[in-house]
Amino acid sequence: MCELLGMSANVPTDILFSFTGLMQRSGPQAPHRDGWGVAFYEGKGLRLFQDSVAGADSEVAALVRRYPIKSEIVIGHIRHANVGGVSLANTHPFVRELWGRNWCFAHNGQLADFHPPRGFYQPVGETDSERAFCDLLNRIRTVHAEEVEGTRLLPILTQACTEFRQHGVFNCLLSNGEWLFTCCSTKLVEITRKAPFGPARLRDADLTVDFHAETTPRDVVTVLATEPLTEGEQWDQHPSGSWSLWRLGECVARGRLGGEA
Amino acid sequence: MCELLGMSANVPTDILFSFTGLMQRSGPQAPHRDGWGVAFYEGKGLRLFQDSVAGADSEVAALVRRYPIKSEIVIGHIRHANVGGVSLANTHPFVRELWGRNWCFAHNGQLADFHPPRGFYQPVGETDSERAFCDLLNRIRTVHAEEVEGTRLLPILTQACTEFRQHGVFNCLLSNGEWLFTCCSTKLVEITRKAPFGPARLRDADLTVDFHAETTPRDVVTVLATEPLTEGEQWDQHPSGSWSLWRLGECVARGRLGGEA
Repeated sequence: MCELLGMSANVPTDILFSFTGLMQRSGPQAPHRDGWGVAFYEGKGLRLFQDSVAGADSEVAALVRRYPIKSEIVIGHIRHANVGGVSLANTHPFVRELWGRNWCFAHNGQLADFHPPRGFYQPVGETDSERAFCDLLNRIRTVHAEEVEGTRLLPILTQACTEFRQHGVFNCLLSNGEWLFTCCSTKLVEITRKAPFGPARLRDADLTVDFHAETTPRDVVTVLATEPLTEGEQWDQHPSGSWSLWRLGECVARGRLGGEA
Repeated sequence: MCELLGMSANVPTDILFSFTGLMQRSGPQAPHRDGWGVAFYEGKGLRLFQDSVAGADSEVAALVRRYPIKSEIVIGHIRHANVGGVSLANTHPFVRELWGRNWCFAHNGQLADFHPPRGFYQPVGETDSERAFCDLLNRIRTVHAEEVEGTRLLPILTQACTEFRQHGVFNCLLSNGEWLFTCCSTKLVEITRKAPFGPARLRDADLTVDFHAETTPRDVVTVLATEPLTEGEQWDQHPSGSWSLWRLGECVARGRLGGEA
């Protein structure tokens, strides 16, 4: 299985601290050694860093760890390969253009017997994850030729996630640069940091940050992850079979997938 | 205006030497200070590094300069903004997926009054260059729903380039990871290096490389650029209004655009 990292913020914020924590889990001795990737929205542009080696062995990861890229939406992923070999083409996050926007997607889980209909978007690699991403975009494009608000996509997204879950585990992060959508099939946690900011300490490395010194009182920053990244803070677990939609650090909608109580 | 850098090789080859030469022309005192980008094919995957600052000021460029990424096809670009502001979304090369492949494009020149019909692929940024790229892909997709060989695309590509040139200067590099297509509207030079390899010295920096020490006798590596990057080697100029198609370092087809003698 893999691990996800997402961020939604109301000001461009760097994610060095959380990224450093996540990368501790992507080493030669760690389970997630089959690649990593992180995408930073910068306006409508998207900056994607990836490698098909473990984060600990990656020169590109070393750059990202020391380079404070500020973004309002970030999607990161560390990979333990199950479907598809270890290659750049199989490395999350995946990116496609729709409506003149960069869409970005990462998945934790595994889908069995998953063969969505061929559509406009086609996978470049061999993963079930990229097939799911292409299918999501094909469903959206079929219904909406022109751009619509994120909330208007919820029926399509939640229906697709409900179907995908019938094939296995489907925790995902999806963004078009305006909003961040999450689906929790089994594991996803969140924390929203806002004033008064305090210190936090990574679980996986001897590193503490004082967010008070790095923020303004108006900042709202939500981090989503497969497992909590810090100690001494309250991370909230998403219920199994739930989704959420984030904008500028705040949750604007959330609910249960079809078939969930 | 901008500058282009392309490579086609029959073995995965690093382009550190040429990239270093190109980046000398992307500094605070140099004309091309409005961003740079370079894309490396790695199998079907594509590794894209970009920045909307000058190469000399870019931490990402510093990484690429010291990190020997080996690839069979590379497309690079340094930007002097004319159409579209200085931003990541306006930074070349541009990437889209078609037929489950990553297509990559960079442009040197400027197109006036250029408003191609709206199609499936839409620009994310504001440049004439990205509009041209989207239009190229829309034309291909309209005719070929399924993948075809590069040579079968030549009628579409050369017709499009002929039309684009009526709007201004259109030097470009385009690849789908299998082949590299070039169009020379005003300026493009090429050099093919093969055994016996010799030394070469950058024009723009005090750096010499002995290709003999870094290659095998079977290697064939072609570099394409807006201006020659080295001294003491013969770079061949493409005629104005010509195109070429490269595969594994060798030119597999070349010709004149419509309306050229």
